[in-house]
Amino acid sequence: MSKDSATHVIDPSDEFLNSRFQIKNSIQRFNPKFDIFNRSLWDDQINPRNFFASYDIANYAPKKSKGFDHWDYALRNASWHLTDLVGEQHFAESGAVEGFTHPFTTQVPGPDVPIVLKSPQETSKRIKAAAKLFGAGMTGITKVDQRWVYSHSFNRKTQDNLSFDLPEGMDTVIVLILPMDYRLGTTFPSALSGSTTGVGYADSLQCATMMAQFITNLGFEAMASLNDTALNIPLAIKAGLGEYGRHGLLISRDYGPNVRIAKVFTNLPMAIDQPQEFGVRAFCEQCRKCADACPPRAIAQDDPQEKPPNISSLPNIKKWTVNAEKCFKFWVGMNTDCAICIRVCPYNKDYSKWWSRLGIKLAGGPLRRFMLWLDNMLGYGKRMAPEAWWKL
Amino acid sequence: MSKDSATHVIDPSDEFLNSRFQIKNSIQRFNPKFDIFNRSLWDDQINPRNFFASYDIANYAPKKSKGFDHWDYALRNASWHLTDLVGEQHFAESGAVEGFTHPFTTQVPGPDVPIVLKSPQETSKRIKAAAKLFGAGMTGITKVDQRWVYSHSFNRKTQDNLSFDLPEGMDTVIVLILPMDYRLGTTFPSALSGSTTGVGYADSLQCATMMAQFITNLGFEAMASLNDTALNIPLAIKAGLGEYGRHGLLISRDYGPNVRIAKVFTNLPMAIDQPQEFGVRAFCEQCRKCADACPPRAIAQDDPQEKPPNISSLPNIKKWTVNAEKCFKFWVGMNTDCAICIRVCPYNKDYSKWWSRLGIKLAGGPLRRFMLWLDNMLGYGKRMAPEAWWKL
Repeated sequence: MSKDSATHVIDPSDEFLNSRFQIKNSIQRFNPKFDIFNRSLWDDQINPRNFFASYDIANYAPKKSKGFDHWDYALRNASWHLTDLVGEQHFAESGAVEGFTHPFTTQVPGPDVPIVLKSPQETSKRIKAAAKLFGAGMTGITKVDQRWVYSHSFNRKTQDNLSFDLPEGMDTVIVLILPMDYRLGTTFPSALSGSTTGVGYADSLQCATMMAQFITNLGFEAMASLNDTALNIPLAIKAGLGEYGRHGLLISRDYGPNVRIAKVFTNLPMAIDQPQEFGVRAFCEQCRKCADACPPRAIAQDDPQEKPPNISSLPNIKKWTVNAEKCFKFWVGMNTDCAICIRVCPYNKDYSKWWSRLGIKLAGGPLRRFMLWLDNMLGYGKRMAPEAWWKL
Repeated sequence: MSKDSATHVIDPSDEFLNSRFQIKNSIQRFNPKFDIFNRSLWDDQINPRNFFASYDIANYAPKKSKGFDHWDYALRNASWHLTDLVGEQHFAESGAVEGFTHPFTTQVPGPDVPIVLKSPQETSKRIKAAAKLFGAGMTGITKVDQRWVYSHSFNRKTQDNLSFDLPEGMDTVIVLILPMDYRLGTTFPSALSGSTTGVGYADSLQCATMMAQFITNLGFEAMASLNDTALNIPLAIKAGLGEYGRHGLLISRDYGPNVRIAKVFTNLPMAIDQPQEFGVRAFCEQCRKCADACPPRAIAQDDPQEKPPNISSLPNIKKWTVNAEKCFKFWVGMNTDCAICIRVCPYNKDYSKWWSRLGIKLAGGPLRRFMLWLDNMLGYGKRMAPEAWWKL
């Protein structure tokens, strides 16, 4: 692991992850060439068929079932409009899909003289106030652990797979949680509900690029990133934003699993956050709603394992790991993203309601079995008919 | 007026505006060359000094007073990042500032065969559901009254001022209300609070361009617009979204004056909305908080007038009109936008609170004087210190 030993100072959040996930010293940085979306471009085992093409409305494939008609695909594809526009503006020249294979290059230059900072604590407060204004539901700050930074870049046009390191000095990362629409998420899976993914990425784009520009404007360096450049989930856990769930997703403290994660790498000195636990692990040990509900059986029923089901996930870290091959194959069959695991997760609630927050409290304590029983009794996790969302 | 008599069918919403504002037949479409921002580029009477330059962080001019330091300008200028990036992507070639002088050209092509529509009512419902998902707090639909469409375009690079008409068939407009941050708005005026304007435009950009892409994806035509192409306020009133205030701003029904307005012109057939009144006019006749609080005395103390104070506003329509020259001169002096009139307006409240909504109800009925007295007694409209927003 190139930069790790040289530049990274172990802080308690790294120790936390090491023990929580029994991470071996032999862990390697992930090469995004093996990401399931990127694999579908070069690995014959992964056939995307019409999946990507359907995001062009000229090629969508309507189905008879509700939630997959022309209205639904028109909305879903429109929800990706800004993310595609900004992220793919250099695709023709460079092959970079900013936000997915490469970080954003949208920043304009800052001032010659950087701001004089009072204290790392004050800077963190200001950064969090800014992130909230720019749309983040939660913000955490942590030191970059190089183990979670991708080892290579992957170019979707040329399939180049060059070795990659973060620029010198970018040792801190601001992790941003962008909540997605709860009500629309109750229609997972559908082309319609794919719109909440699209809006979530647009919100991420807005928040991350504005934050990077804000830091640039202060006279420091910053790099806005969505799914590119590093693994979001370990960084989010390190930054105190949530815990890891059986479905392989972050369960954020204030919004559950129905969120997107964005991040900004920077050399701005800030006070950092530490991991927080609120009972998710013990709950997920009891609960198998996501695993039971997953049509292709891609979610682990058993205990955390060190060996992942295939090359699209990291080995040498003991965790529940989704079988990305089975998962993506199901998406391809539907021509849209799925997220049934988010819909049925007892942590997926409308957190603006006090009874939801009470339920989450119960899930995190000794009454977790009662909460799970209650969740089932009250019918949470059932799919809302897409036409009800359209108010027809 | 070129297209009006030929293509426009008078509907009740036009009659409403005619009588409410005593609009003369001699009214002319507005030429945006006379818009105060555009005037500052060619009219020696309007000197923008460092106003526009300060939106480049290399040229911001910090002040001793709180809310105008490096942090504040860094945040404000970052808040404009996406709007500048997308809106000015063709500026170098064409001189178009999309969203401000020209509509957006970001759409990608739709399908060859348009969707089969069931009814204008159903289409309107679906359009409003989509707009809400894409960030609109309120959505209204109305027929285009050509009187509110700009007579010309204005090119900020070449200063070309070519005559303009909407494309044939674009006879309907979807008007979108984007709420701005109430708490940050309590720090008006400051470079800091200019950030809520920037975020408001980014939200407008997202909602309007996604809506235009959605309609394009249905197989119809659509054109996303912010301040370009037509006057937003009469269209918003026509579309039932609010009333006109003494400060020359829309007072929206669900969010008051602290909003931005965006719009999408389209040929998609939809059921239309009608104007709604909820007592604003009678209230503004009593209340002069905005006029009293305006440092350059740019807001009318007297009754609605037919003749505007200068060429930056429309004649032949009887209304309260802000003196745009005095208003902009004050902005230039501060190197940021002002909006004291929004902060002190009794309709500017956090509408998520029931007591705010009760106050608004009172303002719209016979107890309006009592509401005004209470509003003053409770200290609404006072400026919050910018450092309190930063949580320092």
